[in-house]
Amino acid sequence: MAHYVEISDVEDPRVDDFRDLSRADRRPDRPGGRGLVIAEGVVVVERLVASPYPVRALFGVRRRIDELAGQLADLDVPAYVADADVMARVVGFHLNRGVLAVADRAPAVDAADLIAGSRRLAVLEGIGDHENLGALFRNAAALGVDGVLLGPGCSDPLYRRSVRVSMGHVLRVPAAPLTDWPHDLKLLRDAGYRVAALTPRADSVALHAAGLHRGRSAVLLGAEGPGLTEEAIAAADVAVRIPMAGDVDSLNVATAGAIAFHAMSGC
Amino acid sequence: MAHYVEISDVEDPRVDDFRDLSRADRRPDRPGGRGLVIAEGVVVVERLVASPYPVRALFGVRRRIDELAGQLADLDVPAYVADADVMARVVGFHLNRGVLAVADRAPAVDAADLIAGSRRLAVLEGIGDHENLGALFRNAAALGVDGVLLGPGCSDPLYRRSVRVSMGHVLRVPAAPLTDWPHDLKLLRDAGYRVAALTPRADSVALHAAGLHRGRSAVLLGAEGPGLTEEAIAAADVAVRIPMAGDVDSLNVATAGAIAFHAMSGC
Repeated sequence: MAHYVEISDVEDPRVDDFRDLSRADRRPDRPGGRGLVIAEGVVVVERLVASPYPVRALFGVRRRIDELAGQLADLDVPAYVADADVMARVVGFHLNRGVLAVADRAPAVDAADLIAGSRRLAVLEGIGDHENLGALFRNAAALGVDGVLLGPGCSDPLYRRSVRVSMGHVLRVPAAPLTDWPHDLKLLRDAGYRVAALTPRADSVALHAAGLHRGRSAVLLGAEGPGLTEEAIAAADVAVRIPMAGDVDSLNVATAGAIAFHAMSGC
Repeated sequence: MAHYVEISDVEDPRVDDFRDLSRADRRPDRPGGRGLVIAEGVVVVERLVASPYPVRALFGVRRRIDELAGQLADLDVPAYVADADVMARVVGFHLNRGVLAVADRAPAVDAADLIAGSRRLAVLEGIGDHENLGALFRNAAALGVDGVLLGPGCSDPLYRRSVRVSMGHVLRVPAAPLTDWPHDLKLLRDAGYRVAALTPRADSVALHAAGLHRGRSAVLLGAEGPGLTEEAIAAADVAVRIPMAGDVDSLNVATAGAIAFHAMSGC
């Protein structure tokens, strides 16, 4: 059981993990980065506790910590309790969700293992926006995507904002980087995946005609605006498009991803 | 052609439409409401100019107004030009999009006319969140939905934040209120629409098996969290669900809507 520790002094070093929260999630290989994984709010803290990430501590107002009691039964970490004012002064801003947890990063997943153990994957190129990246993980989790492969130009899915927008699903959908791009897409094809590049190009096939629900498949998504690079599209097996009304530029990338994930799941 | 007017005095009454922008969009039937329709940024201003809403004026830095010159050719309104600092002081905050336009509201669309003239509709209940509402309009526009019917509990789609998140598509996708709820859903059935309520209920039909691309159809969507009311579901012809992975609570309502709109369009 997590053990309650009352915190009344803003300078208490026991809550140092929670200080300067807007930078604590910076990757450990970056200057000043501590690489902590931060969960905000009861629902996301629950997902962190249930994830492979080793939880270091919780910090919250008593009511929120109490709500989590069921999940904390098997967890031997401190649960720091403070009033909302002390919390805000430690963290650096007011948290209306009332509870936080921090964890260390887990060892990286290997792309080859993820490919071998999955049936449906998302492959991202150039998704630098933290909110879009988080929303893609939320949609992947909801729609049965087994894992996410991160090509070049993607931001770190473990940044706090991505964790929050994903509703904590970045903590349970496994993700692995692809380092040799787009050559590594060959790993997918060698494993029997059909790789579908989502692009509005005129020579692409309508999504619902592409049969992505059959066998192993992977959907390749690029950033809103620039879209996928020519190299990535050329390395895919098929180019697919979501049919769009006349003069509309495009859907949000996480929304387009959701439509494609739903199609992979059996539409 | 819109005529350029230089503004250097923050108190200049000619730009009064653009003052206190965070309240200028309040509905005219609410206290202090001026009910102006506000477009922010080049793309959204273009959509406002192309919409049925009567534009009153533009206000921007010269570079952004110049970008719009092609669209302004047939428009006989003032284009107020100021530097970024004067603009920020008039508007009340710094605008990184650099250009605004204001319009009056257009006469409300009649629900019966919208139903008669459409083939695919979205019907919303309890969508109070401005961002979700705006995103639903963006997705409706992209995926060929002809119009939106607004049931009880929906916020005003012409609020500035909805206009912005919709990328201006609230200005071109027609919307009409349904006042007698859920009885008015009968108007749809009388016109030959199949009304599909999107709900995770166990007795619902999987979306891809519901055949929403055949004939006239309408998708009924409720707020994330509470979902549709029992009354609304009972008044629909069929309950449909997006198959979801095990323990995931739900998709964002605009994302769920996009998947359903895509299914209506021919999946």
